[in-house]
Amino acid sequence: MSKLLTLRLAQLNPTVGDIAGNAEKMLEVWRQSESDLVVFAEMALCGYPPEDLVLKPAFISSIETHIEKLCTDSANFKSAALISTPWVIDDKTYNAVHLIENGKITATRTKHHLPNEGVFDELRIFEPGPLPDPVDFRGHSLGIMICRDMWFPDVAAHLKDRNVEILIVPNGSPFTTKKSQDRQEKARECIKTTGLPLVYVNQIGGQDELVFDGGSFVMDGSGEQVFQGAEFAEATYDIEFSGGKFTCPESIPQYSETEELYQALVLGLRDYITKNGFPGVLLGLSGGIDSALSAAIAVDALGADKVYCVMMPSPFTSEDSLEDARGCAEALGCNYDTMPIDQAMGAFTTIIPGLSGIAHENMQSRARGLILMALSNSTGNMVLSTGNKSEMAVGYATLYGDMCGGFNALKDLYKGQVYALSEWRNREGEVIPKRIITKAPTAELKDNQTDQDSLPEYETLDDILECLIEHEMDTAEICARGHDETVVTRVWKMLDAAEYKRRQAPPGVKITSRAFGRDRRYPITNHFGKNIEK
Amino acid sequence: MSKLLTLRLAQLNPTVGDIAGNAEKMLEVWRQSESDLVVFAEMALCGYPPEDLVLKPAFISSIETHIEKLCTDSANFKSAALISTPWVIDDKTYNAVHLIENGKITATRTKHHLPNEGVFDELRIFEPGPLPDPVDFRGHSLGIMICRDMWFPDVAAHLKDRNVEILIVPNGSPFTTKKSQDRQEKARECIKTTGLPLVYVNQIGGQDELVFDGGSFVMDGSGEQVFQGAEFAEATYDIEFSGGKFTCPESIPQYSETEELYQALVLGLRDYITKNGFPGVLLGLSGGIDSALSAAIAVDALGADKVYCVMMPSPFTSEDSLEDARGCAEALGCNYDTMPIDQAMGAFTTIIPGLSGIAHENMQSRARGLILMALSNSTGNMVLSTGNKSEMAVGYATLYGDMCGGFNALKDLYKGQVYALSEWRNREGEVIPKRIITKAPTAELKDNQTDQDSLPEYETLDDILECLIEHEMDTAEICARGHDETVVTRVWKMLDAAEYKRRQAPPGVKITSRAFGRDRRYPITNHFGKNIEK
Repeated sequence: MSKLLTLRLAQLNPTVGDIAGNAEKMLEVWRQSESDLVVFAEMALCGYPPEDLVLKPAFISSIETHIEKLCTDSANFKSAALISTPWVIDDKTYNAVHLIENGKITATRTKHHLPNEGVFDELRIFEPGPLPDPVDFRGHSLGIMICRDMWFPDVAAHLKDRNVEILIVPNGSPFTTKKSQDRQEKARECIKTTGLPLVYVNQIGGQDELVFDGGSFVMDGSGEQVFQGAEFAEATYDIEFSGGKFTCPESIPQYSETEELYQALVLGLRDYITKNGFPGVLLGLSGGIDSALSAAIAVDALGADKVYCVMMPSPFTSEDSLEDARGCAEALGCNYDTMPIDQAMGAFTTIIPGLSGIAHENMQSRARGLILMALSNSTGNMVLSTGNKSEMAVGYATLYGDMCGGFNALKDLYKGQVYALSEWRNREGEVIPKRIITKAPTAELKDNQTDQDSLPEYETLDDILECLIEHEMDTAEICARGHDETVVTRVWKMLDAAEYKRRQAPPGVKITSRAFGRDRRYPITNHFGKNIEK
Repeated sequence: MSKLLTLRLAQLNPTVGDIAGNAEKMLEVWRQSESDLVVFAEMALCGYPPEDLVLKPAFISSIETHIEKLCTDSANFKSAALISTPWVIDDKTYNAVHLIENGKITATRTKHHLPNEGVFDELRIFEPGPLPDPVDFRGHSLGIMICRDMWFPDVAAHLKDRNVEILIVPNGSPFTTKKSQDRQEKARECIKTTGLPLVYVNQIGGQDELVFDGGSFVMDGSGEQVFQGAEFAEATYDIEFSGGKFTCPESIPQYSETEELYQALVLGLRDYITKNGFPGVLLGLSGGIDSALSAAIAVDALGADKVYCVMMPSPFTSEDSLEDARGCAEALGCNYDTMPIDQAMGAFTTIIPGLSGIAHENMQSRARGLILMALSNSTGNMVLSTGNKSEMAVGYATLYGDMCGGFNALKDLYKGQVYALSEWRNREGEVIPKRIITKAPTAELKDNQTDQDSLPEYETLDDILECLIEHEMDTAEICARGHDETVVTRVWKMLDAAEYKRRQAPPGVKITSRAFGRDRRYPITNHFGKNIEK
């Protein structure tokens, strides 16, 4: 049991569907390894989550071809590797992991607990495997638990009963706030009941609405964390295990909660843009806080030269807004242009008889959306939509207007988080002008308008929304927190009524436990909310 | 075994979330019944599919309250009833059915096979129940199989082994083309192996992207169909079963395949509009076939007075299109208006320097979308989007332009089906002017444009798309049908590249085996398609 085992943890950023490219990337890390075993993250070969691609026979056969090629190409490597991939056994597709050594697959294990809640649909595409037996490898007995298999006590117990020496966990675990604590807690529970050391390898990178934070780690048999890997960065770490003790590189300090959140948004946006091949992003800078923070995130993700901000003033735009938008763009160093919408407003007011009220307000927002989309079509830059979760929750956004865009970095941030991140981003120098943070938020679609004409104060709104969305609380429970019943009922109705708008919203980075999108599958036609007062 | 059993089959149209309203509707049918047992469809109380509402404790407790109330209200009814609903037993939520008699729940059974593919997410919200045991009822032994439980041989076999007398199947089975044959085939397989008679009750109605066609039926122990209920209409049917023989009302003839499809679109649209409380619909009538067929469906669904058509000509609009749009609106008798977009085109050409090419084309489409949305905001009428599946597949549509809308009746129809339904709708009098059907399709966004400048002939395109989407075939298999490899590869790439557009498309009626939407969960960021030629 005290024989030396050396491992290389490969925390990479794969691209979904790029089987050849991912294989090439893995081979590079593998070829250079001096360790016994390279551990790649879950679905490292095809990227995670592959979704319904797994149902395509051509996808599976491409995976089989590339696994064969990986075997051939690695035949003379010093290291073996654990490679996770969809795999068909007797006509059933599993979330599997292969041990590949000396040019051959020498063992295959499958995931037992398939997540099928939240954003996950693994029971849709995979068969659950049996409890995984140990894998014998160079005189060691390895316990391999794929991702969710670490979250239930039965898998580690099964492996402990069969005398494994170490637990190795390849993951495709997406970021949410405080998720890294949850993972470490689950790892400690496995260790507590088994006394086994544990090695956790997670991928990084953005994939549509998910962002993976990496943060691979190692814990010894007492549950002490002996290594912490980087967050949101590709890395390989060589560790040694002998006589129950690890020798690891120096740990990377974890980000603060706020910085972690910001980094998640930056990486989520960067990978959406780069993996989808956009040259840059375009956004409407209004002089308000959402577009200012979005611009800052875009600059941090892509570089100021790839960010194009457009101020599109109307007669309702204040001098303050014009100044603040320009000030923000200048502080960020990004491209900035002004395109007044007056002529478009004039044209539509002439074309559409009696255009007024909300219809007139939305028309302005849509004229701006049209301008941004035309610039996008001309330049190839993607429009960045900038609405936050509080607004998207209650429908305080114009469909085909400010909701235009290919991606939205703030989609899952409550308004309070938008303020907190803006303050944080200014910590080493003001890029979001102070007045943007202190002034009353307004859509400036008519004279003297503020968001609070239509909505409760954001602090109240955010708390009620979090109770409704994240915690599925009922009216009585929410009122018990000190909220007015009329307000709670109104917010609930607005939340349900805006489902149709959200269904057409662009994707954005999930950071909460219940993001709008695949994480929360609500009917549009839904009379439950309509009868709340009953 | 020869004791008389009388049943009332209740084929109703519930509304998701309207627990009180659905209960009221059920009580009405139940109160008037003289039969032993009223059989309601799957999830009749809360509507199907309830999706993530089931995860909300307030939803479950409202269901419990209304089940109690149903018990109280029905205490003196002559009939018992089978009522299907989500139900919590020992902290686990099941897709369950209650037998309610004399004011009490006298038996509860749960669904064993939970569908989790296609549009279904039942493993996300329900626990699978054990194989259901028989239910003793007034001297009879009933075998109750909820929906999917009829599709696997084990449930009927389990009930046969326990000597049930009859199989009763409550369903929430959505329409797709040829689905009714599939259901009857599965029913016959159950009967073949058990010799048991079978009663099948399905709901009707539209729920977001799904439409339920009803078509309840009865088969005797030899597999002979002795009754066929109406499609797409609410109905109750009283049947008698004695000495192995049924006495049923006269069967309702089934629609032809084309008419069934048309009725599905009509009901799907009607229910989306009425259940969501829109006074009517608005659509842009271009003089082309998609908007003409959409208008016809809307008129059939809602009545001509609730359909508002707007022709929005540009300098690229031909005289033929103007004539054909007006002719179609006149033939349908709906409201018709003309709003030229020239001024808006002028304004945006001035605002956006160098606007040309695709950006200029999309601008026109978006100006039209903006006008329709402004009219929608002013009147409350919902905008009906009119793109077909072939266009949505390859991205031949303008996001925030012609894709604007709350619902799209043609969303899941290939272009070939649009032509077939248009011909069929003209069978008893031309409402879609002949020239709309015979002329070359064009977006009229520049001079002398036709769809075939950018796309393969629709017949070719539709076949390739069906192979890719419905059958997940690979390039070689598709080429073996006589298609050119370059064309197949190009269509596959267009299909993958347009995923981001489809993600922001309005909902529409699913009619194929693989509709865009929850039925086909593809990543946007997806490099698999990008490497097809390799």
